[in-house]
Amino acid sequence: MSFSRLVTILRIGHRFNRDKRITSHLALVARALGAGKMIVAGEKDPNLEDSINKVNTEWGGKFQFEIVPYDEWKQLITEWKINKNRIVHLTMYGENLPNFKKLKLLDELRQNLMEVRIILGGKKVPGKVFHDADWNVAISNQPHSEVGALAIFLDHLFPNALNQSFDNTQKQIIPSLNGKKNYK
Amino acid sequence: MSFSRLVTILRIGHRFNRDKRITSHLALVARALGAGKMIVAGEKDPNLEDSINKVNTEWGGKFQFEIVPYDEWKQLITEWKINKNRIVHLTMYGENLPNFKKLKLLDELRQNLMEVRIILGGKKVPGKVFHDADWNVAISNQPHSEVGALAIFLDHLFPNALNQSFDNTQKQIIPSLNGKKNYK
Repeated sequence: MSFSRLVTILRIGHRFNRDKRITSHLALVARALGAGKMIVAGEKDPNLEDSINKVNTEWGGKFQFEIVPYDEWKQLITEWKINKNRIVHLTMYGENLPNFKKLKLLDELRQNLMEVRIILGGKKVPGKVFHDADWNVAISNQPHSEVGALAIFLDHLFPNALNQSFDNTQKQIIPSLNGKKNYK
Repeated sequence: MSFSRLVTILRIGHRFNRDKRITSHLALVARALGAGKMIVAGEKDPNLEDSINKVNTEWGGKFQFEIVPYDEWKQLITEWKINKNRIVHLTMYGENLPNFKKLKLLDELRQNLMEVRIILGGKKVPGKVFHDADWNVAISNQPHSEVGALAIFLDHLFPNALNQSFDNTQKQIIPSLNGKKNYK
């Protein structure tokens, strides 16, 4: 198992139906780019869980996706603090990623991928998250998208983010510059 | 004006309400990372246009956002072909970005940013898009998110994607590793 597969992402906040597409995009980005697990603290959503599990079945790999009651985010962060995990909170208020890299902090994370925990807040992020995170990191200090932010951060964090391998695949693509080819 | 601000993105497909958050995330990623314009071919959505314009007012810059009737995507691509623009279609079926870079094609795009046009399809992309694009490019050949794909592609395409400057700002962030600071 590659170390990147040990990285866990916590999404704080999920409202059934209203957030299903954004949360689904977050989970699929996490899986495609090599994270091991996403925990969502929010409302139950069996359809969302089924849709992520279906992607796992068809496209392979062992990505884990779990929805837990909203309040459990506090306990998770507390455990991570006790375990001395390295907690990155992605937020537009944080240090911009290019500066974070200049500080050699991304290198440090890459050397300790097993310890990395990534937090993605929703609209209103509790102050505790900013406080408990080891580093608040911005993917530009402009308002945009937590999906885009997670994608860019994982692409910078994992050396082979775009070339992950997945075992037990039912579907696989033959890449083509010129048009759509059939599946393998 | 930086050349990146001349890059136009075409999103094919927008359903009022159902797609509002994904389309909004796409537009905000495009703006934040330095594209000049996003055209959405789909259903009218004044609320969405208002929300993007509000971000422009508060956070500055001259990002253009326009929704046109769905069928106009064909004419736009035809015009781009006549103008000899360089058309990139982001699709999981395309050549994976790391290979696209090895072929020096990203360098070629970066040297001709004024000419770059990026197409993002929706669920079912017409064959014409695959055919008319100069290059079909995948951000990994796994299913994930057009928001994540656009974010990563722009981050690779634009040298300073995460450090764009915006003029006429009302709001601006003081970045902080340790917590949330007030706006400037």
